[in-house]
Amino acid sequence: MCSQVLINPFRKGCVIFSKSLARRPLANSSWIRTLSHGTQSSNNHDFHDKSGYENSKRLMITGFGAITVAGLYYYFKKNIPTVWAHESKENEVNTVAREPGSFVEGLPVYSSDDVAKHCNESTGVWISYKSGVYDITPFIKIHPGGNKILLGAGGSVEPFWSLYAIHQQPGTLALMEKYRIGNLTKGEEHLAMANMHDPYANEPRRHPVLVVKTKKPFNAETPSSLLVESFITPTDIFYVRHHFPVPDVDLSSGNYSLEVIGLDEKHSLNLNLDQLKTAYAPHSVTAALQCSGNRRSEMNRVKPTKGLEWGQGAIGNAVWKGARLRDVLLAAGIKDSDENENWHVQFDGLDADPTNAPYAISIPLTKAMDPRGDVILAYEMNGEPLTRDHGFPLRVVVPGTTGARWVKWLTRIEVSKNESESHWQQCDYKSFNPSTDWDKVDFSTAPAIQEMPVTSVVCEPHDGEKVKLKKDKLNLRGFAWSGGGRGIVRVDVSIDLGKTWHVAELLDPVKLSKQWAWTRWQANLPVQTTGQETEIWVRAVDSSYNTQPEGMEHLWNMRGVLAVAYHKIKVLVEEN
Amino acid sequence: MCSQVLINPFRKGCVIFSKSLARRPLANSSWIRTLSHGTQSSNNHDFHDKSGYENSKRLMITGFGAITVAGLYYYFKKNIPTVWAHESKENEVNTVAREPGSFVEGLPVYSSDDVAKHCNESTGVWISYKSGVYDITPFIKIHPGGNKILLGAGGSVEPFWSLYAIHQQPGTLALMEKYRIGNLTKGEEHLAMANMHDPYANEPRRHPVLVVKTKKPFNAETPSSLLVESFITPTDIFYVRHHFPVPDVDLSSGNYSLEVIGLDEKHSLNLNLDQLKTAYAPHSVTAALQCSGNRRSEMNRVKPTKGLEWGQGAIGNAVWKGARLRDVLLAAGIKDSDENENWHVQFDGLDADPTNAPYAISIPLTKAMDPRGDVILAYEMNGEPLTRDHGFPLRVVVPGTTGARWVKWLTRIEVSKNESESHWQQCDYKSFNPSTDWDKVDFSTAPAIQEMPVTSVVCEPHDGEKVKLKKDKLNLRGFAWSGGGRGIVRVDVSIDLGKTWHVAELLDPVKLSKQWAWTRWQANLPVQTTGQETEIWVRAVDSSYNTQPEGMEHLWNMRGVLAVAYHKIKVLVEEN
Repeated sequence: MCSQVLINPFRKGCVIFSKSLARRPLANSSWIRTLSHGTQSSNNHDFHDKSGYENSKRLMITGFGAITVAGLYYYFKKNIPTVWAHESKENEVNTVAREPGSFVEGLPVYSSDDVAKHCNESTGVWISYKSGVYDITPFIKIHPGGNKILLGAGGSVEPFWSLYAIHQQPGTLALMEKYRIGNLTKGEEHLAMANMHDPYANEPRRHPVLVVKTKKPFNAETPSSLLVESFITPTDIFYVRHHFPVPDVDLSSGNYSLEVIGLDEKHSLNLNLDQLKTAYAPHSVTAALQCSGNRRSEMNRVKPTKGLEWGQGAIGNAVWKGARLRDVLLAAGIKDSDENENWHVQFDGLDADPTNAPYAISIPLTKAMDPRGDVILAYEMNGEPLTRDHGFPLRVVVPGTTGARWVKWLTRIEVSKNESESHWQQCDYKSFNPSTDWDKVDFSTAPAIQEMPVTSVVCEPHDGEKVKLKKDKLNLRGFAWSGGGRGIVRVDVSIDLGKTWHVAELLDPVKLSKQWAWTRWQANLPVQTTGQETEIWVRAVDSSYNTQPEGMEHLWNMRGVLAVAYHKIKVLVEEN
Repeated sequence: MCSQVLINPFRKGCVIFSKSLARRPLANSSWIRTLSHGTQSSNNHDFHDKSGYENSKRLMITGFGAITVAGLYYYFKKNIPTVWAHESKENEVNTVAREPGSFVEGLPVYSSDDVAKHCNESTGVWISYKSGVYDITPFIKIHPGGNKILLGAGGSVEPFWSLYAIHQQPGTLALMEKYRIGNLTKGEEHLAMANMHDPYANEPRRHPVLVVKTKKPFNAETPSSLLVESFITPTDIFYVRHHFPVPDVDLSSGNYSLEVIGLDEKHSLNLNLDQLKTAYAPHSVTAALQCSGNRRSEMNRVKPTKGLEWGQGAIGNAVWKGARLRDVLLAAGIKDSDENENWHVQFDGLDADPTNAPYAISIPLTKAMDPRGDVILAYEMNGEPLTRDHGFPLRVVVPGTTGARWVKWLTRIEVSKNESESHWQQCDYKSFNPSTDWDKVDFSTAPAIQEMPVTSVVCEPHDGEKVKLKKDKLNLRGFAWSGGGRGIVRVDVSIDLGKTWHVAELLDPVKLSKQWAWTRWQANLPVQTTGQETEIWVRAVDSSYNTQPEGMEHLWNMRGVLAVAYHKIKVLVEEN
């Protein structure tokens, strides 16, 4: 089970430990002091100090508190599925109908110090929200995500919720009132938010055409009608998927470097960007980057899942240039060997959660070392230095593999016998069957998503569009892509619910292997009848003859990933 | 288009050329003389003599005529889809109702010499069948498979048809009578068959449990209830898929050798089996072998396809031991290089068609050279020397790749910039969409099947079985497998048409990559209602999160390959 004991920086006088997220010491994390209820938070925890310098480096680079606070929001956001899952059951039983967090006459009054004393399961777990004090101990037991919920223990959850409007849905708040035990001492209701900086104050500017899914952290997709316009997706309109605020690296400060832990300490490397560029031959790769959750909105029509409501645009195709990871790992003492064939390469970004654990992920070492794997440490995207939104100064490019592995703002690489222990590696970016929901899931039973299955999308027209025929034909355009370098060998389109399939024309060159790029397609289909709704289906076949499942129903998974069924849209074909 | 001009050994005085199948000279093919209508067939064709010694070798090894005649049958069999396709149209128009091949009063009489003069499109194409003479020239024009039909030109088709009962279906024969132009000279009706040897006289003995699909050539599958009994499929009950009679190699004769054409002549190798065994370190691989057409019978329920009516048992899992092909190719001068990344490795077997063209196929060179690709030249299967039915003395084992590439009785390897030009590489073992039928197909538009998509099968119970519950549970067992070394990460089973999915227990160890072996699974599902028919669905997920399409309808393809939809069976759950 994915259980982590987390530290709530909004509480005081209580220490709990995060095993998997404990890489970096918090001694320098002054934001904790600032954000706690005015008293000193305890730092005497048992984190080992393996890479303490990085923590200083990160804080120097990213500025006071920005990343870590955002991470805290993120973590609480991770609780949402749990709350929802529980909520849906509770709604059937009873919730409490009153203004959430309002003062309730007749309930005991507790100070924030009282709340802070209840921060683990032995003491009971209390939280505060506005004027309310809640004992959520019983809720922890039924929390499918384990005790991640303890992030909020002993303090106010308001800082998270104020930024994540999603928590403030009536159902969630009403559910919380079930656990109400008292009122917070008058005057302390606003302490939690008093000294809070906006961690998102230093975000880069974005192109207005991006379709924003969440602002903080920033997540936005490209309109799919734009996607199909060019083989290479312009950087400015390339989809963005962040977990935290965007780090702001100033190379001139000399504080940025990449640490590479290879075979042993002797072989470890520490490289600044110039050293990386000069020591390793540059290699260019044209590769599509796609979020595991692309097309989730289609899956949500079956039943809601938990995740960003991506349409079809959480994908793009770019030219990436950088050093081959294989070359760097060879320099770090890693050899081509059967002995290490089950090892992993862990990547840490500069973006991190409130416990200072970085966004971290791993890929199989065999992919990194494969001379044909084309994994690079990219410093350029589409001929220009990476933008901040795409990982400046360095990101991992893992062609054929889901976007979650393409760590941005890369600062650390470690070859290990183990996968990354991060939440994202262990408890996210995995898929289950439709009968596995948050109350049943055991994340350890599923492998992390690496290569992705074949998918395809109709970009033009869009779902619901009124279209006019051209020379009695319906013009369709879209893209298709498959993971693992498997090229698209056929795209089939149907406008009669699969009775007849038309082979689309592939617009981009295709290789059968090492085909990291997407393939755009077009089809001009004869339409006999106008003035009525027409359903369009598209599906692709890759070079291993994988094809897409027909519908989302049996692909449905609680996290809404890998929504790769046929793309089905409806259009109204107008009379000319 | 897949057009080949073929030589009909049953005709005389007419020469046409086979470009793609012309590798081996026919000068030694004395069976042609024997099988022609008593007169000398012409041998002054323009075959180049690149590997003339092989032809002698093959004939010495396999005995007089055995392989080549069988190949001829095979080629004619390849025409069947065409005949059928045409037939289905013709049936709607008109066919001729009389005993096919019977003497028809009032028609002109032609000698077999007359027939032999009409053997190409400039002369018109005649064939004879029993007492009938037919001008099939108009049929050639509408023959979707090109002019392969010319194999029968200028002679009797009877030798083929006598062995392939499938031709003798009323529809096919009635169709042929449409092209009737005359009667054969009395006394010549039986000449074609007079001196014919049975090319299948020297087949090995087979285990009676095998479910025979065709006897000549021998094709048989393992009952799926036996498959699931053990991780390693015993050799004796392992499925067999042949195109021709089985070569009979006598190693003591010294005639067997493996020719390897590598970088250039200087680097070419010629190895006998002992040399191969001693020069290259043995390597063992546990890998499943599956026919591209496995489960075709399920696809045939949508609409008939053309091919062997495989159930679920054209698959097996074995331990193969042999020399790494990579090592052999390195010795032949092939290097790891980007320059040759689009090259191919062609394999020839000792089994051959009547033009003496061997069963031949190719795989991408990158697969052969991949240190993790595990392609071996196997001389052992399950700890024993290969049996004749499985390729004695040597076969290629291409883990993760469809069975058609695992060439048996291997005698020649050539590294080339091109794929094999063989019929099997170019015009078979490919898939198209359901709207592509034999009258439309352009084989060049589809890649050869190499890696196969994920599949799964319920082996126990079998479709239609009456089953009893054990402790109120329905016990299910089966296997799953995916190509490309992608391990099976989940098998889902449903007994309520997908409303609920149960995760099956995987019985065999699974790796995420280089998982060449299959994975058996079992599930014990609670059943509420007895006495009624229950439909069972199974589907698997591989380590790239590929899963199976729901149904065969949209997977349907004219050749009936890659039938990898959910396996769906119905059982009657009896009251205990």
